[in-house]
Amino acid sequence: MASEQVAPADPGLAAEAAALDAADPLRSRRELFVLDEDTVYLDGNSLGALPGTVAGRLAEVVGHEWGRLRIRSWTESGWWEAPERVGDRVGRLVGAAPGQLVAADSTSVNVFKAVVGGVRMARESDGARDEILVDAATFPTDGYLAESAARLTGCRIRTVAAGDVPGAAGPRTAVALLNHVDYRTGRLHDLPGITAAVHAAGGLVVWDLCHSAGALPVDLDADGVDLAVGCTYKYLNGGPGAPAFLYVRRELQPRFDSPLPGWNSHADPFGMAPDYAPADGAVRGRVGTPEILSLLALDAALDVWEGVDPAAVRAKSLALTDFFLRCVEAYAPPGRVTCVTPAAHAERGSQVSLRCGGGTAGRTMDGLIARGVVGDFRRPDVLRFGFAPLYNGFADAERAARVLGEVLRSVRHACPT
Amino acid sequence: MASEQVAPADPGLAAEAAALDAADPLRSRRELFVLDEDTVYLDGNSLGALPGTVAGRLAEVVGHEWGRLRIRSWTESGWWEAPERVGDRVGRLVGAAPGQLVAADSTSVNVFKAVVGGVRMARESDGARDEILVDAATFPTDGYLAESAARLTGCRIRTVAAGDVPGAAGPRTAVALLNHVDYRTGRLHDLPGITAAVHAAGGLVVWDLCHSAGALPVDLDADGVDLAVGCTYKYLNGGPGAPAFLYVRRELQPRFDSPLPGWNSHADPFGMAPDYAPADGAVRGRVGTPEILSLLALDAALDVWEGVDPAAVRAKSLALTDFFLRCVEAYAPPGRVTCVTPAAHAERGSQVSLRCGGGTAGRTMDGLIARGVVGDFRRPDVLRFGFAPLYNGFADAERAARVLGEVLRSVRHACPT
Repeated sequence: MASEQVAPADPGLAAEAAALDAADPLRSRRELFVLDEDTVYLDGNSLGALPGTVAGRLAEVVGHEWGRLRIRSWTESGWWEAPERVGDRVGRLVGAAPGQLVAADSTSVNVFKAVVGGVRMARESDGARDEILVDAATFPTDGYLAESAARLTGCRIRTVAAGDVPGAAGPRTAVALLNHVDYRTGRLHDLPGITAAVHAAGGLVVWDLCHSAGALPVDLDADGVDLAVGCTYKYLNGGPGAPAFLYVRRELQPRFDSPLPGWNSHADPFGMAPDYAPADGAVRGRVGTPEILSLLALDAALDVWEGVDPAAVRAKSLALTDFFLRCVEAYAPPGRVTCVTPAAHAERGSQVSLRCGGGTAGRTMDGLIARGVVGDFRRPDVLRFGFAPLYNGFADAERAARVLGEVLRSVRHACPT
Repeated sequence: MASEQVAPADPGLAAEAAALDAADPLRSRRELFVLDEDTVYLDGNSLGALPGTVAGRLAEVVGHEWGRLRIRSWTESGWWEAPERVGDRVGRLVGAAPGQLVAADSTSVNVFKAVVGGVRMARESDGARDEILVDAATFPTDGYLAESAARLTGCRIRTVAAGDVPGAAGPRTAVALLNHVDYRTGRLHDLPGITAAVHAAGGLVVWDLCHSAGALPVDLDADGVDLAVGCTYKYLNGGPGAPAFLYVRRELQPRFDSPLPGWNSHADPFGMAPDYAPADGAVRGRVGTPEILSLLALDAALDVWEGVDPAAVRAKSLALTDFFLRCVEAYAPPGRVTCVTPAAHAERGSQVSLRCGGGTAGRTMDGLIARGVVGDFRRPDVLRFGFAPLYNGFADAERAARVLGEVLRSVRHACPT
């Protein structure tokens, strides 16, 4: 058992963890997931754990819907409308009223749709707008796709720290593309404030919610967001590579001119007309035939969110990351790790990123994983620990920090720093 | 039982069907699929039947690889390389040596990559090329995406019947986008001849293999095809919305400049570099994180092709469609249906399309389905019957034609034509 190799807990922290778990209103959600008690899984910000409903539902989709009904399932099993139906379920978790999201394609592909679509809308009002602002610390794929969108639409990219976007947005800004939570540091950006500032400059915003959807409350409608994308395989537990989502604000949908106008977004897809005529509504964000098995696995996975209050998720997330940081302080040898995630709650997502110098970060994470604590390593020196409030508990946080302390003591610096 | 409602068979045709099935070298493949004897499933050109291996494999992927190994499966279960690995398995069925296909995204998204990528390569050699030739009878989504590609690259679309492409290709032709088999009529186009003609004019070809991959031999490498796309949920039985594929000829890969440069196609995806640097090889065709559940269902589904000779598939396909047409001739009331699929073998895919006039086509297909014969209806007047040589037999063809005759006698014209 991995736990036998672990040093004894600090009695005070262990007792506190037990008390916090006992008082946790989300505690029972943990039973909805497939977990093993030997592992502390803190990589749900990369791939969420498996919800217990998925295997049975997928067996039914394969065996009955595909195997028996076959082609009839496109209508009789609701496959055709699944991207919008699942999109609405995700929408509830990101503050979007029904009819504005589709679950489809990858985040990267959706970034391309959103940025090109956003540029076209911005230019419709003002043809001089030729600038795409991109979060300087963006997850790389967003930047790559924004660059491609700029090249194809004759725009230029300006890379700006997210916090500086309000000052940078101006009369040439078509679109600002931002990450709600920084994937590396866990920093939470001011979505309402930045959105308002870009709007004041006449531009549109595209928010990437990969690290916030399911981790904290998001209010797309209330905050006036124009376009948003995100993945569903992190805190939404949709499964490896589960379909991403695209949000197009209802008022903008009639003007959304997708660069990927596939037959699934046609107003009359089975009319097979040679000319494209876009459908109304969220369906306009679709392209080709959805990957139904992955999509319906996501659908089943979303059951774990039924009846969950996003505010309770946020409260637990902050309590978990606060407690984890206190435990790291207590267990880690002094000076070996530095927290790069903001201390201020208003600036923190649902992960803790620790800088681990001296070339030891990779080996430290290997050691953690070998001892049953799964986070991940982002080059060159960051250890990431994601906290999924639906299934991670305070005892997990205590144990992870304790094992981290032990591993740090066993891993020697590769060279002086 | 549906079969009890069906008129008696013509003894000669029934005996012939039995003899042909008995002599069929592919007959035993049928046992690899989940089928029910009450149904004649002739819609495998829309959604292939379920191979028996899929359910068990997918249960393992969900329960063990996602549920137990979680994030470790990206390396330990081979998820990361799956798009290329599965791409190579599809490659064997379309005449592509390993290293040239990825299984990823939808056909529509791949058409966009291929057409923009093709235009860029053509212009690298000759900047004056600004024309995209599109098969006039194309499946609509190809045309929509080609139009978007043209708009974003400053090209114009010229719509040309596939057979006229050799005469139409000229010094302004960047790319010709063609369907190998026409989705509506089942007409097979001359891939080697058209490819050679477009090359002679200095352009590149993009072939859509949706209705030929798995239905007949395709020789991408031997025929010098530049780029190709196709779906895997028809004759390849990969499941609803299974990932499509993109082929980029090996010699062209270094010049393939994707309009969707996602992090999965980066030379060092986990380096998280702010600048895009494309990977070498087929992986350059990827974008974002692959939908693993759908992708690995496809992987399992491809097992049914192990040891199958594409020439045997073609021989059976032609024998099946020939026999079906003879049965239709025998059973259908005279003048009620007309075959629009070419009689010449060299011009026929693996489907039979019957024009059914007088506004009766939709009701005729409804009647067929109600009696256990599943084809599909394409507006305004086409009945499609797809023949999947791995699981459809000659008795299926005889019964389908017999039921068609019966249904046609029961369905009255809506109005005179």
